[in-house]
Amino acid sequence: MNKINKHVNIAIVGLGQIGNYLYNELKLKSKEIKKKTGKKIKIVAISAKNKNKKRKFSIDKKIFYSDPLKIFKKEKVDILFEIIGLSDGISKKIVETALKNKINVITPNKALIAKHGDYLSKIAEKNNVSLEFEAAVAGGIPILRTIKDGLATNNIKKVYGILNGTTNYILTEMENTNQTFEKVLKKAQKLGYAEPGNPILDLNGFDAFAKVRILSALAFNNQISKHKCIMEGIENIDLKDIKIASQLNLRIKLLGISEIINNCLFETVHPSLVNKSSYIGNVNGVMNAVITQGKPVGESVLQGEGAGAGPTSSSLLSDLLSILRDNINKPFGIPFNKRKKLKLFNSNYYTNSLYLRFEVKDKSGVLSLITNRLAKYKISIKRIIQTPDKINKKATIVIITHKTTEINAKRCLSIFKVNKNFLKFPTLIRLYN
Amino acid sequence: MNKINKHVNIAIVGLGQIGNYLYNELKLKSKEIKKKTGKKIKIVAISAKNKNKKRKFSIDKKIFYSDPLKIFKKEKVDILFEIIGLSDGISKKIVETALKNKINVITPNKALIAKHGDYLSKIAEKNNVSLEFEAAVAGGIPILRTIKDGLATNNIKKVYGILNGTTNYILTEMENTNQTFEKVLKKAQKLGYAEPGNPILDLNGFDAFAKVRILSALAFNNQISKHKCIMEGIENIDLKDIKIASQLNLRIKLLGISEIINNCLFETVHPSLVNKSSYIGNVNGVMNAVITQGKPVGESVLQGEGAGAGPTSSSLLSDLLSILRDNINKPFGIPFNKRKKLKLFNSNYYTNSLYLRFEVKDKSGVLSLITNRLAKYKISIKRIIQTPDKINKKATIVIITHKTTEINAKRCLSIFKVNKNFLKFPTLIRLYN
Repeated sequence: MNKINKHVNIAIVGLGQIGNYLYNELKLKSKEIKKKTGKKIKIVAISAKNKNKKRKFSIDKKIFYSDPLKIFKKEKVDILFEIIGLSDGISKKIVETALKNKINVITPNKALIAKHGDYLSKIAEKNNVSLEFEAAVAGGIPILRTIKDGLATNNIKKVYGILNGTTNYILTEMENTNQTFEKVLKKAQKLGYAEPGNPILDLNGFDAFAKVRILSALAFNNQISKHKCIMEGIENIDLKDIKIASQLNLRIKLLGISEIINNCLFETVHPSLVNKSSYIGNVNGVMNAVITQGKPVGESVLQGEGAGAGPTSSSLLSDLLSILRDNINKPFGIPFNKRKKLKLFNSNYYTNSLYLRFEVKDKSGVLSLITNRLAKYKISIKRIIQTPDKINKKATIVIITHKTTEINAKRCLSIFKVNKNFLKFPTLIRLYN
Repeated sequence: MNKINKHVNIAIVGLGQIGNYLYNELKLKSKEIKKKTGKKIKIVAISAKNKNKKRKFSIDKKIFYSDPLKIFKKEKVDILFEIIGLSDGISKKIVETALKNKINVITPNKALIAKHGDYLSKIAEKNNVSLEFEAAVAGGIPILRTIKDGLATNNIKKVYGILNGTTNYILTEMENTNQTFEKVLKKAQKLGYAEPGNPILDLNGFDAFAKVRILSALAFNNQISKHKCIMEGIENIDLKDIKIASQLNLRIKLLGISEIINNCLFETVHPSLVNKSSYIGNVNGVMNAVITQGKPVGESVLQGEGAGAGPTSSSLLSDLLSILRDNINKPFGIPFNKRKKLKLFNSNYYTNSLYLRFEVKDKSGVLSLITNRLAKYKISIKRIIQTPDKINKKATIVIITHKTTEINAKRCLSIFKVNKNFLKFPTLIRLYN
């Protein structure tokens, strides 16, 4: 392993909210870092698109590079922070180049790691440098380190949780204020909890899914899976479903789940109905929580703030200290060639109780049509709640089913065409466990 | 630092429930450990009082030592597990001798670390070996590693939580089954959740207090404090208080709290009334939970099984892997000479709302006597609940006060002598925040 010198040169590429905060933290905490590690850090290069953009913490323009790739030619860098955040392009190029130049890399970039983590970890291992990405999953919660170190040697069968603060904030706020998705989304954007431009990657589950892929790789020692699985976001969650759920003592949470079922890997992100009195049902607002089930440790829970410059910076600094203490780990805990390729669980056989909401014409025969069709697919009913809307001669029928497979549910629902009796395609939300 | 060889010799001293489980885990997982670290482990010595005791997992009697100190003379040991559990005596002797012989030590012994951790860490640092004790606090929850690594560089101001599974089980069970402390304690002993012989160290808060001391040392980088502080257990918790608390939407939890108040260290363990709907109010049964408040990370929560051979062994193995990966850390994260001596907060000025329960003769004038005495000490009342027991002409008066200091509460209560009006010395339980 390449040991780190007493004097450590640092470069930061990307000076948005997180990069700028980190820059300031490194300045403020260099003395404490020296005390904890014996190493003296120095920021020798910073880079961003816009040199003169207004930033919360002022930067040293003498070490500013417009082209981050030029840093490698001018400066001796020991550790590079990549905080641009693209899954490809300049983010990938910078990390790749740094690792090949035997520079340790720290990044909170989940999109990059979920897509190219295996490739990049091979380069890091070949060059005996670290590639650390604690901040990529669940912000300030040190979940990756916990799985790699704290729970090492446990046989983990399942990791799941609330991995996206934006969507959790929106769902919590819709329930608490009775406001629609659109209204709450605008509020979240104003408060900085959702991207002002394009929040789609948070809302559609993509962000949480990238985190699920990284968690699986660490928990199960497998190569990052590339396959498409069930990925649903919260864009179609209606205030109506939140209200009905609440009456049933349930709450909607966007869960990311990674699990070994019959020795196969199953990864998914979808809205889930959880019990209001359950632990996960009470992780509200921008909080994240990750639950691991392992042997012999049992169930462990980690909860904390999942986003924001402060928590993210906390994780970036924990990566920095790990490198400064010469704790050079393989990026995914074990060498690349020891990581398995797990078979994939066929998501058609993913099994859940379902919440189904039908918006129908309020006339006789419609309910029996629904129950007949469910019976045809052997989907048995646990509970029916029918709420008539007399004035408009409509009705809302909510059915909670016993457990059934994805494929069965899909086939069954596909026969409900929108027509004069069925005013909308039925809404489906899975119950968790 | 002394790097670990490819072949690693291990000794286990203490083969009770945990030591025996660990012995078996090491046998089972040696292949996986080799995969994760490249190191081959071998158990070369085991020691316990009784060679022929019936154990769950059978042991190799050829490597058995009746006198653990003889191991050092006969075998080359790289890592020693001390699992006897005494705060002094042979436990201290073994650890001391091992460290001086440049042998890494792993122990779940909180009593030893809380009492002699500073002294032992100096020996470890001097000899460039590791002294790891993740399992000493909160069983399977990797809280020490999280504070040392995952939250390193955060400015932590407070760590608190439920640190003792035995007492948490008893409190939960009393509430759920309406059974007395004595009955539930017997049940806990039967189930192996409480020591069958002498459970006092769990019940009186001593066990939790040792953990608080260790947590403080890591969270605040201070030397382990020796001073006596407020330490109260659950021995005097009455089923009656649990029931009244429940009516008030409160629940009693034994909390361990370590906090920096006005730059001074404050450590305590005492039963606390917490809101039933709060997070900590829902950590039930044998579960442990630790909450840290730091900047910039915010509030982080770790929850998991706090006791038992499985979770403890999970933490012991995480220590082992850390050593095998050559991640040799200072026992308390930073060198001994960099650790501060914090001034102590005067516990007289510890401030809480109080729950006071008076058992009185049901006659006029008694309530006004109580309220007058409280008023004299400027303790103002938030709520009074008086429950008469007409048949016996007695009454229970519960008062929830506004915040007041320890010294004030103590002085005020001391004037309530037991007499014909006051049938019992008043019960005091602090409200958490």
